[in-house]
Amino acid sequence: MATNAEIIAVGSELLLGQILNTNARYLSMELAEVGIDTFRHTTVGDNKERIAAAVLHACAHSDIVIITGGLGPTPDDLTIEVLAQLFAVPMVYDKETFEHIAWLFRRAGKPMPESNSKQALRPAGSSILPNPDGTAPGIIWTVPRQLLKTAGIRHPRRTRLIIALPGVPREMTAMWKATARPYLEKTFASRVIWNCKLRFCGITESALAEKFADLLQGSNPTVAPFAGRWDCYLSVTASGRTAAEAQQLAAPVVAEIRARGELDLYGQDDDTLESVVGSLLASQDRTLAVAESVTGGLISHRLTSQPGAVAYLGLGITAYDNRSKSLLLSVSERLLDRYGAVSAECAQGMARGIRELAGATFGLAVTGIATAKGDTDDKQIGLVYIAVAVDGNVTVQKRTYPPVWPREEICFCSSNDALDMLRRRLLQ
Amino acid sequence: MATNAEIIAVGSELLLGQILNTNARYLSMELAEVGIDTFRHTTVGDNKERIAAAVLHACAHSDIVIITGGLGPTPDDLTIEVLAQLFAVPMVYDKETFEHIAWLFRRAGKPMPESNSKQALRPAGSSILPNPDGTAPGIIWTVPRQLLKTAGIRHPRRTRLIIALPGVPREMTAMWKATARPYLEKTFASRVIWNCKLRFCGITESALAEKFADLLQGSNPTVAPFAGRWDCYLSVTASGRTAAEAQQLAAPVVAEIRARGELDLYGQDDDTLESVVGSLLASQDRTLAVAESVTGGLISHRLTSQPGAVAYLGLGITAYDNRSKSLLLSVSERLLDRYGAVSAECAQGMARGIRELAGATFGLAVTGIATAKGDTDDKQIGLVYIAVAVDGNVTVQKRTYPPVWPREEICFCSSNDALDMLRRRLLQ
Repeated sequence: MATNAEIIAVGSELLLGQILNTNARYLSMELAEVGIDTFRHTTVGDNKERIAAAVLHACAHSDIVIITGGLGPTPDDLTIEVLAQLFAVPMVYDKETFEHIAWLFRRAGKPMPESNSKQALRPAGSSILPNPDGTAPGIIWTVPRQLLKTAGIRHPRRTRLIIALPGVPREMTAMWKATARPYLEKTFASRVIWNCKLRFCGITESALAEKFADLLQGSNPTVAPFAGRWDCYLSVTASGRTAAEAQQLAAPVVAEIRARGELDLYGQDDDTLESVVGSLLASQDRTLAVAESVTGGLISHRLTSQPGAVAYLGLGITAYDNRSKSLLLSVSERLLDRYGAVSAECAQGMARGIRELAGATFGLAVTGIATAKGDTDDKQIGLVYIAVAVDGNVTVQKRTYPPVWPREEICFCSSNDALDMLRRRLLQ
Repeated sequence: MATNAEIIAVGSELLLGQILNTNARYLSMELAEVGIDTFRHTTVGDNKERIAAAVLHACAHSDIVIITGGLGPTPDDLTIEVLAQLFAVPMVYDKETFEHIAWLFRRAGKPMPESNSKQALRPAGSSILPNPDGTAPGIIWTVPRQLLKTAGIRHPRRTRLIIALPGVPREMTAMWKATARPYLEKTFASRVIWNCKLRFCGITESALAEKFADLLQGSNPTVAPFAGRWDCYLSVTASGRTAAEAQQLAAPVVAEIRARGELDLYGQDDDTLESVVGSLLASQDRTLAVAESVTGGLISHRLTSQPGAVAYLGLGITAYDNRSKSLLLSVSERLLDRYGAVSAECAQGMARGIRELAGATFGLAVTGIATAKGDTDDKQIGLVYIAVAVDGNVTVQKRTYPPVWPREEICFCSSNDALDMLRRRLLQ
């Protein structure tokens, strides 16, 4: 059976919703890469009984238990104490760790608070994971079967590996990469999981599931449909003794999906519409300029978030009021009076205007209404026009998003639809 | 004893680390506001046995069990099925829900896939929570003691309330606000928790904790410092029999923090730099235009994300290449040749140029290097200049962010520092 793991986050601030548990996601991704299945995430507060119950439950079901948080110097940092008590071993004092913490404070020119000395304690039998980035060291501990029995786990067949990491994401990831992950790779990696996500837009998750229903039944690779925030994807997962073997098993299915996905398939894994559009522009040696009203700079920001975007995007204009639309994009006041700023005519004018102003291959423009409090006329919230200008042609599309959507959702979807319209145009 | 809750997220993609569980955080915050303690978050995959085990465990320990995810139309959406099986009740078909789903597809002009009809099923005895935003309805179910016994919970003293919500955050929050939260408020709220966050920038979390050390010892209200992504805040929490009583208890402490916070205190709760800057511009009846290079439209997008921004922001220009800086912002080619695009001189020129072009009270400009792959000279990654122009004056500030930071972090912090510079200028 494959090695499996559970991840326990400790911290009352997580249960109050004050911070987001990004650690569980990060560790799950990392474990998948090493070929270890994550069975469960649990979050408990800074409470001895509940931390102990979560650790015990995880040890009863999984080979590896990773705990984040509760390693700090304050009285509500309880992880180490709970582990020692649960498995009935004494806490021992780690001289090297103490000296490292003392050195950190000396280096910062600050006195070391009494409470920090607590961070040099570890359960007897465990080892320290040094913290390159902060004072809280982690621990790694192969808990013997006898101690698991003491804690109340019946008939444990194997030892359990417990890893305790700091809760602060930066410290946690630094420690993970430097020590815990290499250890797991050496000790547990047997089967490697290979995964890729094939991303679609312009099709719903259920339509996608039906279109590829025949592929969803397989076992290695498995294919599963997921809905993203605005797109959807097929997740293809294979396992093998090596990454190459796993990938080889997945390859025919991935190729099949690519072939049948057609234009709706826009990318893979971390691809975004902006990265795909950027790559297409760069590879075709074409340039773009963007004129935005309702999206207020979002399209320009998304495109320029790609390194090297300056090669294909030199200019973006947020022409938020009518004056800017006339002054910079040559949309005439007569046109604005006659059709309004939220109209197919205005979108076309903006696309033409920005293309000429920038001297770019393509002009992309968006105008619409995302909120009741705009300066716009009595048109419906959610009405958006998108135009693409190239050579003498301007194509325009109308969108009507649900008026109940929050403002940011209308803007976000408008930017997606604009980038997608351009993407399909670039693929023609 | 206070009412408590557990939150269970269902979805293999969470355990693979493909998506982040933001729902647990949102629901925890909401529950705290209603005065319900969250005891635990659990995440399990799309697996019948593990979903059932998590629900059973939660029902054994908590009054309220909230499940997110697994309500979709595909075969790996299992929540409803598991609930019916666990408590040994049949699934019943909800005609109204079916008709709503069918209507959604008709409205979208698409055929309804067979699989979506599954979403009209619910466990007998439960009620449907309508989904204003998507096809997946939620359910709410007061599970009687007898059924809890059937499922294997020994001596249940009370009924349990199970709420199942969609996993897509937008649909989940819409359903939560419209139906589940009002129900919980009516049924469970006894002591009400009042909380406010006082937001600071330009000061670190530990400096904040030292500055307000005397206030961190209280019990009702409590005051606790937290670090956000780029800012930090003091969280003030009081409890009382009514919201008014709780707020009254907190008021003197909030007033004290406000008085001592000075210019570093920029807002409260959901305030953002862009909302605060927008309010200041609107109330002072002043206008702004933005010229961006490194931030590529981010500042403009953040400002226009405020409803009514057109009153104070008419124009934003992403002058990403040097041509746009000269052509539109009147930054001379000689200046660009001599000092480079990433220079105090260029930032000043951009701020002056955009202010004049737009005829605005303020011109705000940012230029810098966020990535090695730019078109820029040999200056260091992370070097950013921010300028504010008003009347005949231009002030400029230099920032050097760590070159190891990811591109998006440098852009995000540049936009924060730019908005904060303007905010402090508006408060002078």
